[in-house]
Amino acid sequence: MTASNATAELADYVLSVRPSDLPPPVVREGLRSFVNILGCMLSGSRHAGFAIAERAFEPFAGKPEATVIGRRKRTDAMTAGLLNCLSSSINTYDDTHAQAIIHASGPVAAAALALAERQKVAGADFLTAFTLGVEAACRVSMAVSVPPAKGSIAWSQTGICCGIGAAVAAGKLMALNAHELRRAIGIAACQAAGIRAMHGTMCTALMPAQAAQAGLRAAVLAAQGFTSSEASLEHRYGFVACFAEAGNPQAIAGGLGRHFEILANTYKPYPCGIVIHPMIDAALQLRRQNGLEPPAIDKIAIRANPAALALCDRPAPKDEFEAQVSLQHWVAAALVRGRAGIAEGSQESVRDGAIAALRGRVQVSADANVAPDATHLALALSDGRSLACGIEHALGSKHRPMSDADLTAKFEQLAEGSLAPKAAKDLAAECWRLADLPDAGALARAAA
Amino acid sequence: MTASNATAELADYVLSVRPSDLPPPVVREGLRSFVNILGCMLSGSRHAGFAIAERAFEPFAGKPEATVIGRRKRTDAMTAGLLNCLSSSINTYDDTHAQAIIHASGPVAAAALALAERQKVAGADFLTAFTLGVEAACRVSMAVSVPPAKGSIAWSQTGICCGIGAAVAAGKLMALNAHELRRAIGIAACQAAGIRAMHGTMCTALMPAQAAQAGLRAAVLAAQGFTSSEASLEHRYGFVACFAEAGNPQAIAGGLGRHFEILANTYKPYPCGIVIHPMIDAALQLRRQNGLEPPAIDKIAIRANPAALALCDRPAPKDEFEAQVSLQHWVAAALVRGRAGIAEGSQESVRDGAIAALRGRVQVSADANVAPDATHLALALSDGRSLACGIEHALGSKHRPMSDADLTAKFEQLAEGSLAPKAAKDLAAECWRLADLPDAGALARAAA
Repeated sequence: MTASNATAELADYVLSVRPSDLPPPVVREGLRSFVNILGCMLSGSRHAGFAIAERAFEPFAGKPEATVIGRRKRTDAMTAGLLNCLSSSINTYDDTHAQAIIHASGPVAAAALALAERQKVAGADFLTAFTLGVEAACRVSMAVSVPPAKGSIAWSQTGICCGIGAAVAAGKLMALNAHELRRAIGIAACQAAGIRAMHGTMCTALMPAQAAQAGLRAAVLAAQGFTSSEASLEHRYGFVACFAEAGNPQAIAGGLGRHFEILANTYKPYPCGIVIHPMIDAALQLRRQNGLEPPAIDKIAIRANPAALALCDRPAPKDEFEAQVSLQHWVAAALVRGRAGIAEGSQESVRDGAIAALRGRVQVSADANVAPDATHLALALSDGRSLACGIEHALGSKHRPMSDADLTAKFEQLAEGSLAPKAAKDLAAECWRLADLPDAGALARAAA
Repeated sequence: MTASNATAELADYVLSVRPSDLPPPVVREGLRSFVNILGCMLSGSRHAGFAIAERAFEPFAGKPEATVIGRRKRTDAMTAGLLNCLSSSINTYDDTHAQAIIHASGPVAAAALALAERQKVAGADFLTAFTLGVEAACRVSMAVSVPPAKGSIAWSQTGICCGIGAAVAAGKLMALNAHELRRAIGIAACQAAGIRAMHGTMCTALMPAQAAQAGLRAAVLAAQGFTSSEASLEHRYGFVACFAEAGNPQAIAGGLGRHFEILANTYKPYPCGIVIHPMIDAALQLRRQNGLEPPAIDKIAIRANPAALALCDRPAPKDEFEAQVSLQHWVAAALVRGRAGIAEGSQESVRDGAIAALRGRVQVSADANVAPDATHLALALSDGRSLACGIEHALGSKHRPMSDADLTAKFEQLAEGSLAPKAAKDLAAECWRLADLPDAGALARAAA
C-alpha cells in the first residue's frame, strides 16, 4: 500500500467484500449502528426543523418511490436520502466515532435505504454496504483530522467525509465497477462540504443530509458514465490536501479488511454533543447519590478536555439548536430534571427558569490531561457542602458502550409518537434480523 | 464597516438595492455577463457530458415547471438550476473574474432563471438580483483567495463561492427579509464545495452546478424558517476561516455600492482555461502573420505566469475534458487549425494526429514576471527559422475586453444547433433588452 493509491485501493477493497468476508464483530457493530440510526430517523421526523425542510422541498419532489421514515408519505429517492438523514441527525442523538468526531451512520444509512427501495436488496448485502460506507467515512475523516494528520476543528467532519461514505455504500449496492466507484468517490469528494460555524442551528442536520444526497447522486452519476478524478482523495489538489493542514492518507486504505474503524463507533445515550456526555453522567450521578431534589447549587465547576470548550461552550443558548451544543445547558438540565432525554433538549427546557439560572453558575476549564470521554465535576451547594464526581469513561463511550439491550430500549423510546408500541417493538426486532431479511427496503416501509 | 459583520452587511446591502441604484456601467456588465452565460447554456446543452447528467437525474425529477435551456423539456426548479448551470460550464466557455479566477455567472444565472419560472420576475429585477449575486460571489472569493488573503489553489473558487452568490440572487428575487437572507448565505456556505483535483473531468461542470442548486435550496429553506448561523462568513469556524489560510473578510462588504468587482468580469473568446488564452492569441497571430499552413514546427517555447503551469500543464490530455485544461493542446490546435473554438476542444481534435504531435513539442516555463493575461511564445520552425510573439493582454481580458458585438456573435454561434439562426438572433436581441422585459422567465422559455 502506498498513500498515492488510496482512492483506488478503497474502491477495489469495497467491491471485493462479500458479506461473509467481514468478521462477525464488524458485522455486529454495523448492525448496532443501523438499529441506532433508524431509531434516530423515526424520532427526528417529528422535529419542527424537519417539518420545515420537508415543506421546503415538497414543491420540487419527484416520483414517490422511497419512504420518508416516520411519515405517512413517499418521495423520490434523492429527496428521501436527504430527508431521512436530516431526521437522523436533527436531535444529535446519533452515533460517534470518538477519535474523528464524526457521525457517519446517518448519511450512509439514508443513501442506502433510498436505494433499497429502488432496487431489491437482500438484508445481508445492505448491511455489508452500510458497514463499508461507515468504515470509509471514518477512515477518510481519520486521514484529515486525527494525528498524525493535522486538521482544523472548523470543518464539520460529518459534513465533509460522509458523502464519500454514502457514495461507497450506494456504489456497492449498485454494483459499480472499479472505475465507476473511484469516480463516485471523486464526485462525492468534490461536493464535500460543512463548516462548524453551523453548530447550534438547523444546518447541523443539513450538512449530513446534504452529504447523504451527494453520495447517492455520486453513485447514480458514476453509473451513467459521469467522470471525475479517479484519485480524488490523494490528488495534490484533492480531498486530503484541501481538508487537512497535514494529511495522513495512509489512514484511508491502510489495513483495509484487517483493521476496522467501525469497531470504535459509539451510540449516544443523550441527545447532544458527545463531548458533553461525561458531564451529564457526573451531574446525574451527583444528583442521584446525594438526593439533590430540587438541587440548591451555588456553583458548578467542570474540568474537561479542551475539545469540549472548543465545541460546546455556550452559556446562554437561545434555542434548542444552540442547546444541543451547550454543555452549560445539559449539565444544568441534568441536575434540575434528573434526566437527559429529548425533553431536556426541547425549547421548553431551554426556557425553563430553573435550568437557565443554573446554566449561569457553570464554570468550565480546559485541561488537556482530561480525556475526551472523561470529566471532573464539582458542586458548591447553597448549604455550604461541596460535592465532586470524576467520570473516567462516559456512558456510551468506547470503554463503556451501550449494550444491545440499551440500543433496543433507545429505539423503542425514539419510535414513540411515530409508531405504536407493538409496531416499534416488532420493527426493532426486524432490524436486529437485518442480515437474514430478503428485502432491506421492507424496513423502510415498516418505518413509515 | 468592520470585518466582523460581513454577512449581515452583505445581506443588508443586497436587500436595499433597487434597480435604479446600480451605476449604469455595473448594470451593463451584469447584462453582458448574462448574455454570455445564456449562450453558454445553449451550447452546453448539446454536450455528451450534459446528456449523462440529464439522464441520471431524470428518474428523480419533479413537476415540470422550469425550462432545461436548449432542450425541449421542463423539469422541477431544483433540477433545472443544477442542469442549466452544468450546461453553462461544461465547455469552459463562460466568464472569469481574473483576480479571483472564478466563473460566477453560471451558478447565479441558473438559480435566478429557475426562480423566474416559478414566480413572475420583471427583467430589471432579475438583472439586479443576478448582478448582485455575481458581485457577492466575486467578493467572497476575493476574501479567501486574493492577496492580502492567502488561500490555496487546491480549492475551486467557483465551486466554493458561487453557491453564496446564487443564494444572494435567489434570496433577493424571493424578497427574503434581512435575517432570512443572512441565513440563506449561511445555508449556502455550509454546502460550499469544490476541489481542483476535478479539473479535466466532467466534475469541473458539476461543481458550479451543485453550487447553483445549493444557493437555490438555501434561499428556499431560509424562506421557510430554516436556521443557520447569521455570521457564517466571518465566524471563527466559518467560511473564511475554513477556505483561507489567511482571510481578508474586508473584501466581502468593504465599499459595497461604491466599488464593484463585477466590473472586472471578462468573457472567454476560447472554450478553455483562461490562463491558456494569451498563448492561443500568440499562436493564432504567428500562424496568420507567417502563413504557417500547415505549420512545420520543431519546437514551441512558452513563458507564462506560474498559474498557467499550476492549472493547465497537461502535455497529453486523454479526452476532451483534460484538453480543456491543457495549454499544450490548445497551443497545438490553434497552430494546426488556425482557430480555437468548440471544434478544437472536441474529442476529434484531441485525437488528431497532427495536433497530438505538436503538443509533444511544447516547452513551457513559469515566469512570475509574466502577467496572467500575458505570454511570450517562440517557435523553432523545421526550415530553421525562429519566430516569436509577445502578448501583453489576451483577447477577452480586462484590458482588451470582448465588445458587445463580439458577445452577440459568440451568442449566435453558441446557439447554433439548439435554435434556428433567426430564433438565435431574436433571442440575443431580447437578452440585451432584459432590463425592459416584463417577464424574465420568458427568456428561459424562448431558449428551449
